[in-house]
Amino acid sequence: MVELRTGDVGLDELNQAGRNHSLPLEALRYPITPAGLHYLLIHYDVPDTDPAAWRVEVDGHVAQRLSLSIDDLRSRPTVTMPVTLECAGNGRALMSPRPVSQPWLQGAVGTAAWTGTPLAPILREAGLRGDAVEVAFRGADRGVEGGVDQRYERSLPLDEAMRDEVLLVHEMNGQPLLPQHGSPVRLLVPGWYGMTHVKWLTRIRVLDQPFDGYQMITGYRLRTEEDDPGEPVTRIRPRSLMIPPGWPSFPERNRFVNAGEVMLRGRAWSGRARIERVEVSTDGGESWQDASIEDELGPFAWRGWSFAWSAEPGDIELRCRATDGTGESQPDEAAWNLGAMENNAVQRVRVTVQA
Amino acid sequence: MVELRTGDVGLDELNQAGRNHSLPLEALRYPITPAGLHYLLIHYDVPDTDPAAWRVEVDGHVAQRLSLSIDDLRSRPTVTMPVTLECAGNGRALMSPRPVSQPWLQGAVGTAAWTGTPLAPILREAGLRGDAVEVAFRGADRGVEGGVDQRYERSLPLDEAMRDEVLLVHEMNGQPLLPQHGSPVRLLVPGWYGMTHVKWLTRIRVLDQPFDGYQMITGYRLRTEEDDPGEPVTRIRPRSLMIPPGWPSFPERNRFVNAGEVMLRGRAWSGRARIERVEVSTDGGESWQDASIEDELGPFAWRGWSFAWSAEPGDIELRCRATDGTGESQPDEAAWNLGAMENNAVQRVRVTVQA
Repeated sequence: MVELRTGDVGLDELNQAGRNHSLPLEALRYPITPAGLHYLLIHYDVPDTDPAAWRVEVDGHVAQRLSLSIDDLRSRPTVTMPVTLECAGNGRALMSPRPVSQPWLQGAVGTAAWTGTPLAPILREAGLRGDAVEVAFRGADRGVEGGVDQRYERSLPLDEAMRDEVLLVHEMNGQPLLPQHGSPVRLLVPGWYGMTHVKWLTRIRVLDQPFDGYQMITGYRLRTEEDDPGEPVTRIRPRSLMIPPGWPSFPERNRFVNAGEVMLRGRAWSGRARIERVEVSTDGGESWQDASIEDELGPFAWRGWSFAWSAEPGDIELRCRATDGTGESQPDEAAWNLGAMENNAVQRVRVTVQA
Repeated sequence: MVELRTGDVGLDELNQAGRNHSLPLEALRYPITPAGLHYLLIHYDVPDTDPAAWRVEVDGHVAQRLSLSIDDLRSRPTVTMPVTLECAGNGRALMSPRPVSQPWLQGAVGTAAWTGTPLAPILREAGLRGDAVEVAFRGADRGVEGGVDQRYERSLPLDEAMRDEVLLVHEMNGQPLLPQHGSPVRLLVPGWYGMTHVKWLTRIRVLDQPFDGYQMITGYRLRTEEDDPGEPVTRIRPRSLMIPPGWPSFPERNRFVNAGEVMLRGRAWSGRARIERVEVSTDGGESWQDASIEDELGPFAWRGWSFAWSAEPGDIELRCRATDGTGESQPDEAAWNLGAMENNAVQRVRVTVQA
């Protein structure tokens, strides 16, 4: 049974919120998120890993098993790509009711320059058998979730796993992966929500049928009732966030700016298509105007945007809204689901403008 | 008026918990905390700083004002020191009632190798006037707290400011300071709670009377009633924390281990004296046994400890307790105060031991 809750946050949720963390929204100013500011969601514990002794096993429906060390991975062709990752649960605490889980507000996002080697040539080297349909990726982190004692494990359909841009990653922003981001090696599947990029990767299994592990069948499904099998969570929906302007109060984080021209800035992204439009409302959603959009850092990374706001004294609600190349825009309110996932509702920022 | 709360965490506290973060306790395994795992508490926003244009002004009751660039600071004598920092509010959410603030559980700690230049020679170069009694340190971060629009600012008595180990720090773990840790320069006052180590340092003012800023007079005081001036929060009280053994559940973070010998490990620190003793209880505080203590990393850094536990099946409560060279031990329950600060009560970790 999924435990649902409304309103205040309990000790179990606080336990998660104290460990995991979002991007502080002012850090949207950095095109590449500095170390320690990228959002972080760890289901279980950061495992104690030894890069020198690490092996990634490739097995299952392959012609020959492979066992790759970190040096093996580093000696292969190397790609560096800016990629935006976002947690599928971003916005969960703004849905009501919500399941007891990580109570994200809106900052579960970040963009790093990821360095690694493409997965597809490794799978080709192992030799995919004709009956292969999926590839499962196992991490070293162990925990009990939904009553199941497990190592975190997720799968991809074969065609997704074979995409050129799917990497086994060993560096982030030009440094070896930090422990909390999957040291020494993680999966990177540009465009997909965060649960896909399995950290502390130990095993790659080629399967002749869809993987039925907990994180595929029970976790990360969009469903409105317990007995509904639901749809799998896959690619990131369009979202934009602004840097809340001015300065905050502590602890409430109300915002204050001086009247006059205020340059609003933010980022927008989608894992489904290019961001085509960002709009801003400075009157609580009554009217919308187009923001200027910067070039994307790369095909799977966010685009910066800006909007010159003539701030007049009063209490104002700012909003921003992104639209991607599929025509999908952020909703005012996202469709409710049991996991409170994919909540890409427009951001609302209340600001007191001082004369 | 301080707003007090019991039980569940409200949206304002969640706003803080989602931005700030603790050390995930399994990261106590690292003697030097890797980037991004060190606890973080930011009162306002991470300011947008430009290291190339940065100046630290030294003024007030000095013979001559100084204006120091980051290159000036880097060209001065350099010291690297491992120092443990802890937030004065660590443990706040375990006190009841608590003020609305950052709702820390127990992990608001970290140890970095800090690199910088001693402050005392800079103050001597500026020439302290005979009437100097305190030094105030101002950060670039702006916010409204207790109704006061302020730049974060804290002071030290002159004799504390002149201690050899007080540094202006520009590197953390061999890298330039990260934005969230005070880039390009912060104060480091080994032994003191976290509020002292002013980040994004812009100004050092020598004063002829005690500084009466908000963070000295209203914030960071130990008081039990609003109209009590209270005692200032200064040096870190002794504390020990263990790495919760075994593996967790998600989202509750219950713990599970297999029966047999389990090596319990953790760290202990105090800003007041050397840690002299760490004790462990495996029966909920009924009896205590001494842990083995490792050498300290430095005079202001934590000491590792370990204890071999023969785990027998059942539900167990583990505890650990540190004593420092002043004879002060961690209490079972800490003295309540309005700010819920200095809560160094012994850690309790419930574990289910499986046969």
